Amino acid sequence: MQDVRPVQAGVVEEWDLEADVVVAGYGIAGVCAAIEAARAGAEVLVLERTGGWGGAAALSGGWIYLGGGTALQRALGFDDTPEAMARFMSAALGPAADDARIGDYCAGSAGHYDWLVDCGVEFKPEFWSQPGWEVPHDEGLGYSGGENSAPFRADIPPAPRGHVPRMQGKRTGVRGAGYMLMRPLAETAESLGVRAEFDVRVSALVTGDGRIAGLRARRYGRDLTVRARRGVVLATGGFTYNADMVAAHAPRLAGRPAAAIEEHDGVSILMAQAVGAAVAHMDATEVAFFGDPQLLARGIVVNGRGQRFIAEDTYPGRIGQAVLLDQGNEAFLVIDEAGHDEGVATATSTPFFRQPPTWAAGSIAELEADMGLPAGALQGTVDMYNAYAECGEDPLLGKKREWLRPLRSPFAAFDMRGFTAGFTLGGLRCDLDGRVQHVAGGPIDGLYAAGRCTWGLASGGYASGTSLGDGSFYGRRAGAAAARRTSGDAEVPHA
Amino acid sequence: MQDVRPVQAGVVEEWDLEADVVVAGYGIAGVCAAIEAARAGAEVLVLERTGGWGGAAALSGGWIYLGGGTALQRALGFDDTPEAMARFMSAALGPAADDARIGDYCAGSAGHYDWLVDCGVEFKPEFWSQPGWEVPHDEGLGYSGGENSAPFRADIPPAPRGHVPRMQGKRTGVRGAGYMLMRPLAETAESLGVRAEFDVRVSALVTGDGRIAGLRARRYGRDLTVRARRGVVLATGGFTYNADMVAAHAPRLAGRPAAAIEEHDGVSILMAQAVGAAVAHMDATEVAFFGDPQLLARGIVVNGRGQRFIAEDTYPGRIGQAVLLDQGNEAFLVIDEAGHDEGVATATSTPFFRQPPTWAAGSIAELEADMGLPAGALQGTVDMYNAYAECGEDPLLGKKREWLRPLRSPFAAFDMRGFTAGFTLGGLRCDLDGRVQHVAGGPIDGLYAAGRCTWGLASGGYASGTSLGDGSFYGRRAGAAAARRTSGDAEVPHA
Repeated sequence: MQDVRPVQAGVVEEWDLEADVVVAGYGIAGVCAAIEAARAGAEVLVLERTGGWGGAAALSGGWIYLGGGTALQRALGFDDTPEAMARFMSAALGPAADDARIGDYCAGSAGHYDWLVDCGVEFKPEFWSQPGWEVPHDEGLGYSGGENSAPFRADIPPAPRGHVPRMQGKRTGVRGAGYMLMRPLAETAESLGVRAEFDVRVSALVTGDGRIAGLRARRYGRDLTVRARRGVVLATGGFTYNADMVAAHAPRLAGRPAAAIEEHDGVSILMAQAVGAAVAHMDATEVAFFGDPQLLARGIVVNGRGQRFIAEDTYPGRIGQAVLLDQGNEAFLVIDEAGHDEGVATATSTPFFRQPPTWAAGSIAELEADMGLPAGALQGTVDMYNAYAECGEDPLLGKKREWLRPLRSPFAAFDMRGFTAGFTLGGLRCDLDGRVQHVAGGPIDGLYAAGRCTWGLASGGYASGTSLGDGSFYGRRAGAAAARRTSGDAEVPHA
Repeated sequence: MQDVRPVQAGVVEEWDLEADVVVAGYGIAGVCAAIEAARAGAEVLVLERTGGWGGAAALSGGWIYLGGGTALQRALGFDDTPEAMARFMSAALGPAADDARIGDYCAGSAGHYDWLVDCGVEFKPEFWSQPGWEVPHDEGLGYSGGENSAPFRADIPPAPRGHVPRMQGKRTGVRGAGYMLMRPLAETAESLGVRAEFDVRVSALVTGDGRIAGLRARRYGRDLTVRARRGVVLATGGFTYNADMVAAHAPRLAGRPAAAIEEHDGVSILMAQAVGAAVAHMDATEVAFFGDPQLLARGIVVNGRGQRFIAEDTYPGRIGQAVLLDQGNEAFLVIDEAGHDEGVATATSTPFFRQPPTWAAGSIAELEADMGLPAGALQGTVDMYNAYAECGEDPLLGKKREWLRPLRSPFAAFDMRGFTAGFTLGGLRCDLDGRVQHVAGGPIDGLYAAGRCTWGLASGGYASGTSLGDGSFYGRRAGAAAARRTSGDAEVPHA
């Protein structure tokens, strides 16, 4: 990585490029910032490290967490309110969800859906009801955070809020939902006159006159200086691919497969920290769990002591977080043959998740011995589970009645120790206009950020679509705020 | 809090105070930095916010984590090596313990003990063998991190490493072990000519000529500028009493009782971040657990689902971390009357920990109903525990044979939900000489730090004595390094 120390404007002899608003990163946050800055009348330049737009968003599953009564939710007959959505997000995205930000996001969520549709993003009005994080075809709406599972459903009216852009050729991956989200947005930006420079790697901020004046970058081995007359928007993603930062902040993710792209090297966070920016929740991570939801829901997930710890029919990302963060990355799926066969027949997930069981046995006693658990540990768990399942109840963890059936011989178990991966959720502290905050409080003049280089809606928990959600929503805010800033008008001097 | 933004040296018209080495904070790290800087020939000035030396150290239990064959360990017949000590610390202080730092600390640990003794700190050569974190009288050595408990004892030769300065009048608190650690050190500093200014609240660093030139502070409502000809050592403690920082970095500690002093407001971390300093493991926390170890070891500790999750005879701080971080801050102690009565008769902890049980019952079925657990949850746990305890085994969690005895009616349970408190462990990244690191890598010239405003030996786990250990050890290093630095000789320019 290049030196992230800020450069004094006086040192810069000439600007190689300039614009009113300079956006670093052409993923979901960057494209939305560019669109809104351009619509606000600013000349916009996007600097992108790779050869094209897209970022992690274009390669992602494309889910966007939206609700409070979007047109799609209403068309499919789901009641939702900003209040119910906010209650769920505050409960599920903890342990320290920012209620002001969540309230703001939920209040604007239905309008944000309309904005995406206006930009050309298509959502098919069809609902996918199964647990999981993938729709089998091109369905446009599904549960993506465990809203209809324990513990949330008891107190908070559930609604599906995972909005999925209509994809083409899911199995080939050519036009996945993430791509079908990004393409119309990039086309919209282009139609508004947004310029983009590719193969440009940003490395440092340029400071002058008490504000951020631009960026230093590198292209084809040569340094570039880029002037931002109104503001810089940082949107280069998280730090999942920065091993040093992961070790220092989110060590449980160290050495795990990264659910991110290598451009997520944390450079925006470091560049901003070098001028005194504050960060938050740098330890927080999304955690994926490599199990097929149709199998998980039909079995029981136990830890290294043979104990259940989570309702198995919830969002698999919640299971993954519990496994990695609370259970020492140890988990086993125990299932019976009937449930296994039914689950496999029903499974719609990518074939990657379909592995044969690790162990098979005629009795739990035999199975727990094979698994290396103390005799009786799994037996006690299964006995209790079965006794309640007979009555359609799960008082321990609240799995829904539809998935409750006593486990009967023959049995199988999957060794899922280490079946986790993830990406980072922590980053720069911003206000609701995307203004990067100084550790002393107040904004750093001329500096904005959005997407996974910021702390967004999640501070520990997660629901699929949260990152594309806050990246797009607060990307728009950051672009608009940067465009509004008058050239040379320093609000608050930074360091 | 005052503005932590750095002040340019050119803005400072005159220096109110000056010295070669200026130390902020007169706790354990500050006093050790002052001693070594003075011994290296520097003129030293300590700035302390309160009216006297002491900091959190003087009010603490005084345990210092030392080993590898200290004179005290050897006098009491314990074999220990730096290698065994390092293996334990790497395993117990994770999830991302810094092996280089741990190796360095363990290699110097026996020598550091001698240094403390040379400064006048007294340790009584008497061993306290019971689990816990308090010695009953003035014993000088005890287990303080679960070294002799599962899971560590199976693979790592255990040795007691909690060194306790000889206290006077433990029950009155007048001359506790923390005070008896700090007093001789402060007297040593004074004898070396170290000056101290009290009621001085530091607020910002002064920068100039590419280095840290001093500090801005406030006393009696008036700003002070303090020149540091060679270096500034930050040693004002952690951020447990900064609610905004706790919410942003260690939210599970938010709203919990603080095992710290209100001077631990994070100001050193913020002042350094304002000049681009890197932080690490800001989420990490020590967690105390308000249970009497003599009762914990004789019972079983279960979570909100009635499941055991930790060997109950380990260091109570490990139990506290597991409860707060992995078990949603829910725990219950289940014990039988015989164990309870024996534990109370043996208890040596402060009376604070001795509460009556919340529930009492003749059967586990009755007890679990009273506790609000699903029928059968606790019963299964107790049945399995008892079956193995009959044979003196605990294959699930490895509690030592000496504490294993089947639980027999009548039973009692303690509601220990929320019985946790703690302090922060994350902070500034420093090298082994206490030089504060910039986010771009490399030191910030003229800036040093030690103690709980830095990330030290622990990055998640904990053992009692770790903070006084790294605070004193790396406080010495920071003071020596600052004294060695030649006035005006900029090594690496900071932002």
